[in-house]
Amino acid sequence: MSRYWSEVVHGLTPYVPGEQPRIEGLIKLNTNECPYPPSDKVLLAIAAQTTGDLRLYPDPQAAGLKAAIAHHHGLKSEQVFVGNGSDEVLAHAFIALLRHPAPLLHPDISYSFYPVYARLYGIETRELALRDDFSIAVDDYLQAGPNGGIIFPNPNAPTGMALPLSEIERLLKGNPDSVVVVDEAYVDFGAQTTATLIDRYPQLLVVRTLSKAWALAGLRVGYALGHPDLIDALTRVKDSFNSYPLDRLALAGATAAMADTEWLAQTCARIQASREALSEGLRARGFEVLPSKANFVFARHPAHEGARLAAQLREHRILVRQFARPQRIADFLRITIGTPQQCDALLSAYDTIAAQSASR
Amino acid sequence: MSRYWSEVVHGLTPYVPGEQPRIEGLIKLNTNECPYPPSDKVLLAIAAQTTGDLRLYPDPQAAGLKAAIAHHHGLKSEQVFVGNGSDEVLAHAFIALLRHPAPLLHPDISYSFYPVYARLYGIETRELALRDDFSIAVDDYLQAGPNGGIIFPNPNAPTGMALPLSEIERLLKGNPDSVVVVDEAYVDFGAQTTATLIDRYPQLLVVRTLSKAWALAGLRVGYALGHPDLIDALTRVKDSFNSYPLDRLALAGATAAMADTEWLAQTCARIQASREALSEGLRARGFEVLPSKANFVFARHPAHEGARLAAQLREHRILVRQFARPQRIADFLRITIGTPQQCDALLSAYDTIAAQSASR
Repeated sequence: MSRYWSEVVHGLTPYVPGEQPRIEGLIKLNTNECPYPPSDKVLLAIAAQTTGDLRLYPDPQAAGLKAAIAHHHGLKSEQVFVGNGSDEVLAHAFIALLRHPAPLLHPDISYSFYPVYARLYGIETRELALRDDFSIAVDDYLQAGPNGGIIFPNPNAPTGMALPLSEIERLLKGNPDSVVVVDEAYVDFGAQTTATLIDRYPQLLVVRTLSKAWALAGLRVGYALGHPDLIDALTRVKDSFNSYPLDRLALAGATAAMADTEWLAQTCARIQASREALSEGLRARGFEVLPSKANFVFARHPAHEGARLAAQLREHRILVRQFARPQRIADFLRITIGTPQQCDALLSAYDTIAAQSASR
Repeated sequence: MSRYWSEVVHGLTPYVPGEQPRIEGLIKLNTNECPYPPSDKVLLAIAAQTTGDLRLYPDPQAAGLKAAIAHHHGLKSEQVFVGNGSDEVLAHAFIALLRHPAPLLHPDISYSFYPVYARLYGIETRELALRDDFSIAVDDYLQAGPNGGIIFPNPNAPTGMALPLSEIERLLKGNPDSVVVVDEAYVDFGAQTTATLIDRYPQLLVVRTLSKAWALAGLRVGYALGHPDLIDALTRVKDSFNSYPLDRLALAGATAAMADTEWLAQTCARIQASREALSEGLRARGFEVLPSKANFVFARHPAHEGARLAAQLREHRILVRQFARPQRIADFLRITIGTPQQCDALLSAYDTIAAQSASR
C-alpha cells in the first residue's frame, strides 16, 4: 500500500499460478505441463537463432509465425494474433473486446485468471454456475440477458470437461452481438476445436497456447484466431502496449513447433492413453473422476478431504493442485497427466496413504 | 472498426516502431540497436537452457534475474521489477503508478510511446516544451502545478541529450508527491544514472532495458528499479496480466548478461568513441549535432530537408530515423551509432548526396 499507487492497484487480487518449486525428484503434476520434452526440431530452430543477431529487434509483426499458425489451422495470417503466452493474449482480449457496459459472462468454476483481468480493466462480470454434473449449461448463457461478452475454456479448467462443437455453435447462433472467447488451451487432448467455425462467426475468438500440447510452457507463446476485425483490435492494443512481445528465440521455436504436427499427434495420443489409464486406476480406488478431454483429471474421493489429500501426496513428493474455492470443488484434486511411471507413482502413493488411513 | 470493439480501441493511435526490413547489405541505423553481438557468455547461457526443460514454466518471480540485476546496481531484489522489454515495464508503470486525477507531465519531444500508453489507460497528459536548445527545463516541471506523475528519458530520445544528476535530484526534491519515472534506456552510453538515488527518493522509478547497451534487443528484457512499494504495485499489475512474462531463455540470457560487466564497459566505450567521431564528421560537413550521451546522434543540416535526406540515404541502402512531427524536429535525422565502418559509409553516402545536390 502506498500513496503513489494508482487507484486500480488497491483493488487487485492477482492470479496465483501453481507453485514452481525447484526440488530434485519431485513429481510435478500441478501446473499441466507436458511430461515429454518438446520436438527436437524446436530446440534446433532455437539453437540456430542463438547468435549475434540477438542484438537486433525481432519482427514486431511476427509474420513468419503467424503464417505457420494460419497454415496449421487452414486460415489466413490476418486471422491470427500472437502474444507472450495465452495469458497475454487473453489480457489484450479483455481490454480490446470484452470491456462493454453489459457484464461479461463466464462459468463460476473456470480459469481463475478471468475475474483478475476483469478487475484490472474495470469490467463487470457475471458468473454462471456449472450444472450439478459440472458441465457448462449453454442455455443459461442464452437466457442471461444482455452481455458484453462470453468467455470459457473448452475443455473447461479445472474440470477438464468439454462442450461438443454443436453446443458452442448453438451459443454462437444465439449470441451474435458480443464476442465469444473460447479458450482452447487444452483442446488438442481430445476436444473439438472451434477454429473451424471462424469463417462463419465474426464474433468468435479462439485462444490457444503452446504451453500444454506443444510442451513449450517455458517459451511463452500463445495466439488467437478470429475475424480480421477482432485481430485488428488486439493488434491495436498490443501496439499500444509493447511492440515486440515475442523474442527472436520464441518466434523461431514456435514457428518450428507449428510445422511438426506429427510430433503433436504422437504426444497427444500418449497423454490421452495415460489419462484413460489414470482415470481407470483412480476410479478403481473409489475416486469420482470427471470425464476429461484435457491433460489433467479432476477427481475427488468420498473418504478424503481435498486439501489434506494434496498435503499427504506432497509428503510423497508428488505435487497436485487443489482449489480451496469455491467450496463445491474443494475436495477435488486437479492432477496433471504425467508419464505412465509418474501416474503409477501417484496411484502407489495414494494406496500407501489409504492404507495408513485405514489402519489408524 | 467493428461493433465488437471496446470503446477504448477506437481512440488508440498505436506506436510505430522503426522499420525492420530484412534486406541483405542494408546499414540499419534506424532503431538504436547495438552494432556488436552480445557477450558470448549470454549465448552460452541460452544454449545451456535450450533443452527439454522448455516444457516447464519459467520462474514466475524471476528470482535469479532479479538478484543479478540487484547485484549489478548495489540494490536489493525487492527493489527490482522485470518485464518483457522496457516497453512492457513502462506499460505497467503507466497503469500502476501514473494514472491519477492530475495530468502526467512529459516533454513534448520525447519517447513517442508515452502518449500512446496514456491513451490506452485513459491518463490525461500535459506536454512541456523542451528549451530552444532542446534541453529539458526542470523548472517548468516544478512550476506546472499539480501532476499525477512525471516521465522523461535520460538521456532524452530522440535528442540524445542528458540531464545531470543534480538537476534530476532537484526535480525529485521539489516533486515529492507523485512518481517520477526516469527512463534510462540509453544511460550506459555516458549519462549519470539515477539508480544511485533510489534509497533516498521513494517516488523515483528508474526504467532500464537490455536492448541497447547489452545488445539484446532480440531477447526482450527490461527492468525497473525503485522503492519496494513501487515495485509491489508493478508486481500486482503484472500478476493480474501475465504470470510469466519472461521465458526461460530470456531469463538465462539476461542473468548471464548482468554478470558480464566487463563486456558492457568495453562495448559502451567503443560506441562512445564512434559517436564522437561521427559527430565530428557530421559537424565538419555543416551539420548541427545535438550533444549526445546516447548510442545515436540527432542532427540536421541547414541545406537539407530531413525527410528528403533520409530518403536519399535509403537509396544508398542506409536507414536512419526521421520524425515528421513535431515540426520543430522534422529536419533532424536520428542516426544510430554503428560500427566505425558503418559510420564512415554514412558520411561517404552523405558526401555523394551533397555533391549531387551541388552539381544540380
